[in-house]
Amino acid sequence: MATLCRPAVAVPEHTITQEETLDLARRLHARHPQLGLVLRLIGNTGVRIRHLVQPLHETLRHPGFTRRNAVYEAEAKVHVPPVVRRALQHADLGPEDIDLIIYVSCTGFTMPALSTWLINTMGFSPGTRQLPIAQLGCAGGGAAIGRAHDFCLAYPQANVLIVSCEFCSLLYQPTDLDVGSLLSNGLFGDAVSSVVVRGAGGAGVRLERNSSHLVPDTESWISYAVRETGFHFRLDKRVPGTMDMLAPAIQTLADRHRWDASALDFYIIHAGGPRILDDLCRHLKVPPEAFRHSRATLTERGNVASSVVFDALDRLFAENALHTAAQGVIAGFGPGITAEMSLGTWVPAPAPGTANGHRPGAEERAAST
Amino acid sequence: MATLCRPAVAVPEHTITQEETLDLARRLHARHPQLGLVLRLIGNTGVRIRHLVQPLHETLRHPGFTRRNAVYEAEAKVHVPPVVRRALQHADLGPEDIDLIIYVSCTGFTMPALSTWLINTMGFSPGTRQLPIAQLGCAGGGAAIGRAHDFCLAYPQANVLIVSCEFCSLLYQPTDLDVGSLLSNGLFGDAVSSVVVRGAGGAGVRLERNSSHLVPDTESWISYAVRETGFHFRLDKRVPGTMDMLAPAIQTLADRHRWDASALDFYIIHAGGPRILDDLCRHLKVPPEAFRHSRATLTERGNVASSVVFDALDRLFAENALHTAAQGVIAGFGPGITAEMSLGTWVPAPAPGTANGHRPGAEERAAST
Repeated sequence: MATLCRPAVAVPEHTITQEETLDLARRLHARHPQLGLVLRLIGNTGVRIRHLVQPLHETLRHPGFTRRNAVYEAEAKVHVPPVVRRALQHADLGPEDIDLIIYVSCTGFTMPALSTWLINTMGFSPGTRQLPIAQLGCAGGGAAIGRAHDFCLAYPQANVLIVSCEFCSLLYQPTDLDVGSLLSNGLFGDAVSSVVVRGAGGAGVRLERNSSHLVPDTESWISYAVRETGFHFRLDKRVPGTMDMLAPAIQTLADRHRWDASALDFYIIHAGGPRILDDLCRHLKVPPEAFRHSRATLTERGNVASSVVFDALDRLFAENALHTAAQGVIAGFGPGITAEMSLGTWVPAPAPGTANGHRPGAEERAAST
Repeated sequence: MATLCRPAVAVPEHTITQEETLDLARRLHARHPQLGLVLRLIGNTGVRIRHLVQPLHETLRHPGFTRRNAVYEAEAKVHVPPVVRRALQHADLGPEDIDLIIYVSCTGFTMPALSTWLINTMGFSPGTRQLPIAQLGCAGGGAAIGRAHDFCLAYPQANVLIVSCEFCSLLYQPTDLDVGSLLSNGLFGDAVSSVVVRGAGGAGVRLERNSSHLVPDTESWISYAVRETGFHFRLDKRVPGTMDMLAPAIQTLADRHRWDASALDFYIIHAGGPRILDDLCRHLKVPPEAFRHSRATLTERGNVASSVVFDALDRLFAENALHTAAQGVIAGFGPGITAEMSLGTWVPAPAPGTANGHRPGAEERAAST
């Protein structure tokens, strides 16, 4: 019974408000033929503030892909360890208890992946398996939950650490002037997050079932153009309308589990943008408040890619209002177009002073994994 | 009981022999102060011929990262589908029977991953899970086998398709002149491969146990420098000596399974280079012939990165000399430095005309996955 524990989330210190974003767009793109549309789209995102891994003036420079990726690596090494430590604390585990690290990031690329550095520097066992995922984009967080769940089904005593590191601001491309790019410049933000999936014990979301769904023939709708200048994010204008195609996948998953997708107790949904949340609300026939955690993430962070689901989940834990066995769904959306979905039930934290479930030692885990 | 079926492997039509490689090195690097060492190292690889996805004169040009990555994508779409079809035939399955596609490649980068295109064009279900792995380098094939095994442990009726697409020649960097780079220019080759892991039924290697091992503090020994010109492969001169550190990990895995790593019936080992194979033979106290399939891969293909283990495995199947329940190990090595290892027993193909195990339908699999 795999349990997704409370995530840890952090955002870098630099910020940009929506007003600053709009001012900047007006200044940088004064003669853009679709400036009015761009300003309206950015205004509609509902994003109030975003965090940036570099000061704004540095963010707006493009110092070359070499330098960009070096900043990614250096900043990841600063921002990731604290969230990993907190995620382990939330799960009441130490690094020696982790059997698999899933490192998710689509905004920088290193070989080996940062999971190697984490193992070497944070006390994880050299036998820790590594699963770096770079190519699932915003859906990577949802996929990581699914794969962690699968791993704990395979090895019921195992524990999985998920790390998501997204510095979307490092993908800012000053020469990309299409409407999708200019909207993206006003939508995405930076965040890092980490969470443990415990195979045995733990409190949080007990994972029950997961699935993936690819909307046929939408490969080009969200993509990277890979160039000398790095990754160029391409966003088709049809993307905000994709809930027509993805809502049925959530309903199918719930049906298969004999749950009602319209009557769940919690919804942790990828906050790709406001229309995605609005449309999915409508399709699932749930009130807007059902998506309050995703909306809060979007408002206070922007779209932080694969970290969105963990940030929204952290808000669910902070609210602390769920009853035992409350039913919910977690869904990440990303390029493909894909949805990566999980169903789970709420397991409250035990009263202080009581044991937090059986914690198998390394030898017991080694015997099974 | 997950079974790794017979792989399908293909190499592109263009070739370069070792003699041509040595001539080229002499011509291009006539004044290189370590030319003698480079020629000796290339000569020692034992690589007789390698295959290239472009003609040699195109391979030696660097038309920019944009163009390079576009060639990767276009050639992957040419070379991958035939091996996928053959791998499915070997497993006696159709695309509709596959629940997870693990797409492994470290020589090109696309978002979404090529698995999305495969699903859209080859008849896989939109519910197929995707696991693209780009950051495990040469160890990616071994890791894919491990994760496919884990997935089938979680869902015993599931089937996993692994695809490995490695066009190492697209990482040729004419301006990298250190000895490690010049050796790599004479060592790596191009290949694509695919294999199915069947959760139920099938013939081949029944997967029994897997593990990973990271050699502490060797992160920088094999790495990519990510630059405007693409991925620059960095190879430390200490890498050929790493079997001192990785052989014990294979022995530990075998010990845990109460097998003797020195007395296995087959060895499918990453053919990173000749010294890796020689040293591991010595450490495991097995005769050189035990690694004949890996040596044949190295001789006839060069180091084809994550496809090495599948090419060597294909040769094991072709030899068709194993008895039922013969014991063996599959080990991929790569950046980290990591080993990704699996133990398995041989399940011979059934006599013609007999059933190849139970083949669950999509509904039965959907109920469980």
